[in-house]
Amino acid sequence: MNPNPVVAIAGATGAVGVEMIRCLEERNFPVKELKLLASARSAGKTMKFRGKDIVVEELTEASFKGVDIAFFSAGGGISRKFAQAVKEAGAVMIDNSSAYRMDPNVPLVIPEINPEAALHHNGIIANPNCSTIIAITPLWPIHKVNRVKRLVAATYQAASGAGAAAMEELEQATRAFLSGEPFEQKIIPHPYPFNVFSHNSNVDPETGYNEEELKMVKETKKIFGDDNIRVTATCVRVPVLRAHSEALDFECENPITPKEVRDILAKAPGVKIVDDVSANYFPMPKDASGKDDILVGRIRQDISDPSGRSIAMFVAGDQLLKGAALNAVQIGELLVR
Amino acid sequence: MNPNPVVAIAGATGAVGVEMIRCLEERNFPVKELKLLASARSAGKTMKFRGKDIVVEELTEASFKGVDIAFFSAGGGISRKFAQAVKEAGAVMIDNSSAYRMDPNVPLVIPEINPEAALHHNGIIANPNCSTIIAITPLWPIHKVNRVKRLVAATYQAASGAGAAAMEELEQATRAFLSGEPFEQKIIPHPYPFNVFSHNSNVDPETGYNEEELKMVKETKKIFGDDNIRVTATCVRVPVLRAHSEALDFECENPITPKEVRDILAKAPGVKIVDDVSANYFPMPKDASGKDDILVGRIRQDISDPSGRSIAMFVAGDQLLKGAALNAVQIGELLVR
Repeated sequence: MNPNPVVAIAGATGAVGVEMIRCLEERNFPVKELKLLASARSAGKTMKFRGKDIVVEELTEASFKGVDIAFFSAGGGISRKFAQAVKEAGAVMIDNSSAYRMDPNVPLVIPEINPEAALHHNGIIANPNCSTIIAITPLWPIHKVNRVKRLVAATYQAASGAGAAAMEELEQATRAFLSGEPFEQKIIPHPYPFNVFSHNSNVDPETGYNEEELKMVKETKKIFGDDNIRVTATCVRVPVLRAHSEALDFECENPITPKEVRDILAKAPGVKIVDDVSANYFPMPKDASGKDDILVGRIRQDISDPSGRSIAMFVAGDQLLKGAALNAVQIGELLVR
Repeated sequence: MNPNPVVAIAGATGAVGVEMIRCLEERNFPVKELKLLASARSAGKTMKFRGKDIVVEELTEASFKGVDIAFFSAGGGISRKFAQAVKEAGAVMIDNSSAYRMDPNVPLVIPEINPEAALHHNGIIANPNCSTIIAITPLWPIHKVNRVKRLVAATYQAASGAGAAAMEELEQATRAFLSGEPFEQKIIPHPYPFNVFSHNSNVDPETGYNEEELKMVKETKKIFGDDNIRVTATCVRVPVLRAHSEALDFECENPITPKEVRDILAKAPGVKIVDDVSANYFPMPKDASGKDDILVGRIRQDISDPSGRSIAMFVAGDQLLKGAALNAVQIGELLVR
């Protein structure tokens, strides 16, 4: 890989695209040239990168000539449509959509967990689902010491997972609710102000799990390289703007104490312990928003498991950053390093 | 018990007190006379009951003369302070606070579960914690058929659990947030608009569980009359006004299928199945608000338990109704029946 690559972002004007630009900037990613790509509707806009205006271009098959790394965050359909063009241009696609995550020929990478996988790609590297990243980045260092056999997760997911328009809609709908005015939501299919609802991805009629939950179940096995880890999740949207929280309850192979977990996490990359029992201060999406680290707290022995093998904890992470843009840029760093 | 009792409500002007008045009215509770009691600050206000104005009186030890049933919802301290006066007046206290719940001489009653316990009281009957009621009312009919050995719960709790002032504060703080204006919260200790946070009850430094969670752990054993049921919970507040939701994952003694659970719950009192997979429509606090029933959906086999003994589901119930006022009035009905 060219150590000073030409970088493209497909979906540059979306919520994740905007954060990708910021991450490239803040992390001093070596960028020879940045191409910002979006739909025809957004073409012509200008966006700032390192103090310079860049004109957004329409995403076409010709967009990737001379590109080394193409970050994609424009939905699975777009990723599939342009994968061949990216490949033919000799670029590597780092794809934030779900299109290729479970493809056995595509590595699925969280740099804190399986960085080596990123180097064995065939032109596409997949970025995991946000809820998966936020749950398992703190779980991995524990898994390495004392294998996690089972995870029960319940999520508290933000609007940002449905894009910038959903974030805006949550604010507008809430404003209308507080004024007693009618408001017709167009993005989110259930009343969102002061409400929570089961994640609005399709539910598999066979298992009863929704797509978001099945992503957590399947992606965890692939990223951990452990087909035996058993995961269940209940994915729920809450009226929060951009950070996901999750209640995690996991069972290890051998007994484990909260102190051991704390000692492991204190040294773990990408994770910050926020666990102040006396001040009743724990991870909150408000605090996780705009932060790179996943906040972890409420670390305690699960009192419902007398074998001492289970731990409960609560995590919060920025859905747009570690859950999407940051993780993708970190994958890019593995390539140019 | 007098079949046409004189009823008092201590804490009549609070969020739960208001709902108690409504429940007595809507359920045609036989009330010879209703006394509304509150702090000196609220005394003199008038509230409607069956079309008539009732003047709120200051709660004093003399308030209970002639009273048969005294509903209390004014905090544990008030319940403890007046318990003796209620007893001496020959009235039965139905207490919504946590003061007496775990007292071995006080029955802790959910009428759908252990109605018989209400009849063996010594002047006080305790109303369980809202999160406990909403989790275990749907769990009990399953437990009767196939013993629930373990429950892992994650809650999505509304502002109403912290009272009417907290509900008002959530609205005001959200309005300020949307206008970009500063707002100092006085009731809820963490930023509430577009945020979630670990339940603001004290955390036990020994176990790491907060009081709300420990209530669920202990009360479930007492109400089920089963010391062996193992419960863990993560209690979280979400920016919702008055209904709690909970993700429940439970393990039974023997294998169990979602169909069996559905068949059991279809006939269960106090519970309504809302589980429309094709329409992606499941229990939401918005729909549970103002409703007597606890909504249950997302009923599915937990795919992380290959033994087929575990079920995941999602519930929502009105914190002020079944979680508090309604359950208390139902206990009153057991006494006058």
